[in-house]
Amino acid sequence: MSLEALFSPRGVAVIGASADPDKLGGAMAASLVPYDGNVALVNPRGGDQMFTSVTEAAAAGPIDLAVLCIPAPACAAVLDECGAAGIGAALICAGGFAEAGGEGVGHQDDVLDAARRHDIRLLGPNTSGFFVPRAALLASFVPGVASLSPGGVGLVAASGGLNHALAFAFDRELAGLSVGVGIGAGIDVAAPDVLDHLAADDATTVIALHLETISDGPALIAAVRRAAAIKPVVALVIGKNDIGEFAQSHTGALATSWRTTRALLEQAGAVVVETVDALVTAATVLSRARIAPTASPAAALVTAQAGPGLAIVDAAQDTGVGFPRLTGSTIETLSTLLPPMTYQANPVDTGRPGPRYGAVISTVADDPEIDVTAVYALAEPVVDLVEAATSAHRNGAAIVLGVDGPADDVAKARHRAADAGIPLVVGPQAVAVALDALARDATLRDLLADTSAPAGVASASGPTVDLPATGLTETAAKDLLERCGITTPARRVVTDLAQAQAARSGMAGPVAVKISSADVLHKSDIGGVRLGVATPEAMAEAFGDVRDAARRAGVGEEILIEEMAPAGTDLIVSARRDPVFGVIVVVGVGGTATEVYADVAVAAWPATRGWLTHLPDRLVARGILDGHRGGVPVDRDQLTDVLDTLGRLVHAHPSISDVEINPLRATADGLIALDAVVLTDTLATKER
Amino acid sequence: MSLEALFSPRGVAVIGASADPDKLGGAMAASLVPYDGNVALVNPRGGDQMFTSVTEAAAAGPIDLAVLCIPAPACAAVLDECGAAGIGAALICAGGFAEAGGEGVGHQDDVLDAARRHDIRLLGPNTSGFFVPRAALLASFVPGVASLSPGGVGLVAASGGLNHALAFAFDRELAGLSVGVGIGAGIDVAAPDVLDHLAADDATTVIALHLETISDGPALIAAVRRAAAIKPVVALVIGKNDIGEFAQSHTGALATSWRTTRALLEQAGAVVVETVDALVTAATVLSRARIAPTASPAAALVTAQAGPGLAIVDAAQDTGVGFPRLTGSTIETLSTLLPPMTYQANPVDTGRPGPRYGAVISTVADDPEIDVTAVYALAEPVVDLVEAATSAHRNGAAIVLGVDGPADDVAKARHRAADAGIPLVVGPQAVAVALDALARDATLRDLLADTSAPAGVASASGPTVDLPATGLTETAAKDLLERCGITTPARRVVTDLAQAQAARSGMAGPVAVKISSADVLHKSDIGGVRLGVATPEAMAEAFGDVRDAARRAGVGEEILIEEMAPAGTDLIVSARRDPVFGVIVVVGVGGTATEVYADVAVAAWPATRGWLTHLPDRLVARGILDGHRGGVPVDRDQLTDVLDTLGRLVHAHPSISDVEINPLRATADGLIALDAVVLTDTLATKER
Repeated sequence: MSLEALFSPRGVAVIGASADPDKLGGAMAASLVPYDGNVALVNPRGGDQMFTSVTEAAAAGPIDLAVLCIPAPACAAVLDECGAAGIGAALICAGGFAEAGGEGVGHQDDVLDAARRHDIRLLGPNTSGFFVPRAALLASFVPGVASLSPGGVGLVAASGGLNHALAFAFDRELAGLSVGVGIGAGIDVAAPDVLDHLAADDATTVIALHLETISDGPALIAAVRRAAAIKPVVALVIGKNDIGEFAQSHTGALATSWRTTRALLEQAGAVVVETVDALVTAATVLSRARIAPTASPAAALVTAQAGPGLAIVDAAQDTGVGFPRLTGSTIETLSTLLPPMTYQANPVDTGRPGPRYGAVISTVADDPEIDVTAVYALAEPVVDLVEAATSAHRNGAAIVLGVDGPADDVAKARHRAADAGIPLVVGPQAVAVALDALARDATLRDLLADTSAPAGVASASGPTVDLPATGLTETAAKDLLERCGITTPARRVVTDLAQAQAARSGMAGPVAVKISSADVLHKSDIGGVRLGVATPEAMAEAFGDVRDAARRAGVGEEILIEEMAPAGTDLIVSARRDPVFGVIVVVGVGGTATEVYADVAVAAWPATRGWLTHLPDRLVARGILDGHRGGVPVDRDQLTDVLDTLGRLVHAHPSISDVEINPLRATADGLIALDAVVLTDTLATKER
Repeated sequence: MSLEALFSPRGVAVIGASADPDKLGGAMAASLVPYDGNVALVNPRGGDQMFTSVTEAAAAGPIDLAVLCIPAPACAAVLDECGAAGIGAALICAGGFAEAGGEGVGHQDDVLDAARRHDIRLLGPNTSGFFVPRAALLASFVPGVASLSPGGVGLVAASGGLNHALAFAFDRELAGLSVGVGIGAGIDVAAPDVLDHLAADDATTVIALHLETISDGPALIAAVRRAAAIKPVVALVIGKNDIGEFAQSHTGALATSWRTTRALLEQAGAVVVETVDALVTAATVLSRARIAPTASPAAALVTAQAGPGLAIVDAAQDTGVGFPRLTGSTIETLSTLLPPMTYQANPVDTGRPGPRYGAVISTVADDPEIDVTAVYALAEPVVDLVEAATSAHRNGAAIVLGVDGPADDVAKARHRAADAGIPLVVGPQAVAVALDALARDATLRDLLADTSAPAGVASASGPTVDLPATGLTETAAKDLLERCGITTPARRVVTDLAQAQAARSGMAGPVAVKISSADVLHKSDIGGVRLGVATPEAMAEAFGDVRDAARRAGVGEEILIEEMAPAGTDLIVSARRDPVFGVIVVVGVGGTATEVYADVAVAAWPATRGWLTHLPDRLVARGILDGHRGGVPVDRDQLTDVLDTLGRLVHAHPSISDVEINPLRATADGLIALDAVVLTDTLATKER
């Protein structure tokens, strides 16, 4: 169902309207009266230019959207009346629904039932509304929205408050808005619906997305993927830290991990940023410029001031933007344009901008190795930065202008840049953020261009096993992995010392002796693992110790004898069923890295071969995979297959909640799963 | 020597002045003419209102400062003339000195000689100048500086460009400037001089410091310490990433580590920030508010919009700011002021601000558990946020206002807040940055209040050793540590198997067998370490292997037999002589943490007991020291003593460049140095 009735209504009825602008119904009426279409004010008590009912209003002129400024208990009945009058969309601003508990839960059920019954698309409840500046459609209590300029930024915020805060921030940057929406409770119209609307909306050139908690993960990711295939999507996810009780009071949805949400948004093609300020800068810049897909975007910086130039390069390099040396012919041309003492290789230090500033910018932008050219200078009346950049911009180069200066001069430069359609930001930090956004947009598109599926090592949906309620023993888990094509060490399960000795003598080199039970997750911690057992005497001692540990833990007599793997590089890989997003796969390096530094890379499964292969490059510790300081390099193709196999395994077995291989060791002979845990969730199975 | 002649001259001479504002000498003259004191324009070619020499100008009226807008080769002679005329300060804007190489090196020597000869304090060369807005003293080529307002921010930037960029940024925030200085080459007046001046300047209420490369580390740190004891110092260090060649073209100084610089600035009391934007926000806020020293600053947030509130709390928590639940009596009072459905525990969600907004803010700010109260709302003409906060502000509470809204309304709120002296920032992110700055200022002052010296475990300056050119063997290094009171494992150096067997049988439990030579830094990598040798057979094999490895490496026959330490928590500690800052001590956790994640904490030695004890808390992996997942907790007092001892050791032995204990193992019996490297630098010794 389209959102046309919501965002392009022939007419709007304000229900609970008031003549008093200090009342919410009065503020909303004042905002909506300027709307280009038909506007009807409704209040059962009547009044000057008031209809006393929706029915009456709809009889007088076309109404597609009802804006309800009335308390929660009254909403469902009004929606029924709206439905009868043929109204296709409604906005409910009030709180006091499910988030408030008690009777609010019933009110929410009632309005949702009414909306479904009448095919009404419902925005809210618990939001301060939305706006479409180009049509002067301003469904907001905040009078300042009347000053918002129309433009290319389509804004979807989880909350009405941030929708307003961001809308004003974009407006201060002179990045006009196509649509700004605060989702609120999102019981019907949610972020995915608005994303689809904005993806299809020609006036929207970039989408800015703010998320708090996510209810329907797969729908969100699918909508982001569809939108990002058409235009840039920039996303900010709140919730890195525990904002617990307050967040719950504000909205109520399944908790998921901040890292997972961000990772999956990127996999869907969104440029994910860290701060509200970065969201505004990145979307503003991407509404005016974009660079072609590339694996390693190259930036150039033309600066009139070395100090801010250093600050820009330092901050931009921190996010992975490269500043390669300009090509010889570019440097040669620059040497004819600039004084001899300036630095010209990249950054290009111009000294104070002179008459040949435009030629310098064009020369740098024309360098075949350069994807985007940033230009920084103090805004001065005598230096027209926008004029200087216009020629390069017209020739199709991606340009980012950065300025500092007195407020008035900065404002003038901003207006000139907005008129010319050239990205302009204020201050060195914003230039770095802008370059990072352009670069990440380009690298994501490059990565996502590979849509091939992983080859896989074997069909994970083939073998099935009887899964006990408490999970598999290590042995059973490894047997399962073997059947999926993942290599595991040679092993035997034994119950007495004679079997243990026989097992050892049949294996190459020293062996490991471990508790086999699935009831002990951290076997080493209770003395249940002995490594490097190489002689009959050592086996006698090790077997006795491990069996004693198993008995103390009350986990039976089964002991696992296993060949030791050669030294190598240890990884952690897993797949699990995320409560919000479904099957995800995770990769990290061993040791403290995963736990202490949260250095893991996450992807939704299924994923393309390109994305899975790229995944480990998202780790801070990615250097370890290349054979850090003499270590064994990881076979990246094989790792891709293992990740895909684990995802398929969890997908194919609804009763498996979690598969983890820790460590997965990269050896000269390939990847070997040295320890494996398979957790089952029989309750979840029953519910499915 | 004071900087009075530079910053408060009775008169200024512009040398190389021009009537043409497009020439540098013309732009500088135009900027300086409005100065409150005497201004003389000097050009040997004469002209309207021009003196033809400094001598002539000085005869006509008092001149303390000469601003040289002439090329490098001409400067030294003019300085001589200035000195003869009794001028006490000079500014040289030109480049073309040592940074340009060639003849420039000689020009630099010449101007420095001239300045020294005449006791002239010299700012520059290679800087675009400085300004003192309250006296209309604007020594800058940029006409826009005429719009800068006077105020409390004292600004010291490494470069003239960033001095201007930051000055304009502060001005846009309505944070006035007391002084703004671009150091440039800094061959005479450098950041420490300006810091001392600003510390003593009553008009300066906060110091904003921008640093690139550092030449005289100890002088800088000492000046920051002196200034931070009097007023807040906020510092930004550029150079996290390799900005190599371009940075060298811009300035030339000894390289030091970005992390070390930041760590030592914090140890001296500076609030160190990450970005240019954060420098502006933090200094602006600290110029108007400060909270009392405390180990764990507590913030409250009063917000009219839940969404931005969540964004603020999420971002602020990320930097360690706490938002404790308000006390019962505060919540009780709030319940009488706010509608029942709002969240009131902290954050306090007010809904749209009403007439009792001021009472809500005062109630929260009065909570005895709260150190700082942030208030966020949309700036609307009907909501006077500054008025609402005034009562709490007058009662001495630290308040940070955050707004969003149309540009005009935001500008009005900014002016109102500046007039009232209440910090106001724009957008949720800036509120989080402001809270972080206030909190870090308070925790640093709390930490630095402990000025006691560490007890030390023994006098490190006592024992001295003969240090070979290539460093000590592991054995000699451990002997040295033992003599300093640091525990090491029982060990013996052997040269044949019989000695090795005897050594093992005399030790408790399994032993380690290692190459003893100092010529191999990573013994494990070449097979030079065998652990857990517990039997005569195992010793025979291990000894043979390690001796073979030693022979292959050509490092002699000495083998170290050492008792194995019990399991524990591994740390890395070291002390070394930093080329810029002198003796520093470093602590990290073992494994990949230090190397891959650069998770190390650095301090200058000597340090107070309080700072050294706090140091490991600066690690991301600090949880590991508390006995992470069943690990052995680290004796923090003992760790403090070890760090202090290593610092003293390097300090006392000028020939030692580096001492590293890796690992230093925390066991139930205390800290044991399991491996130690002592590097000597005989060249450095000779030079001293």
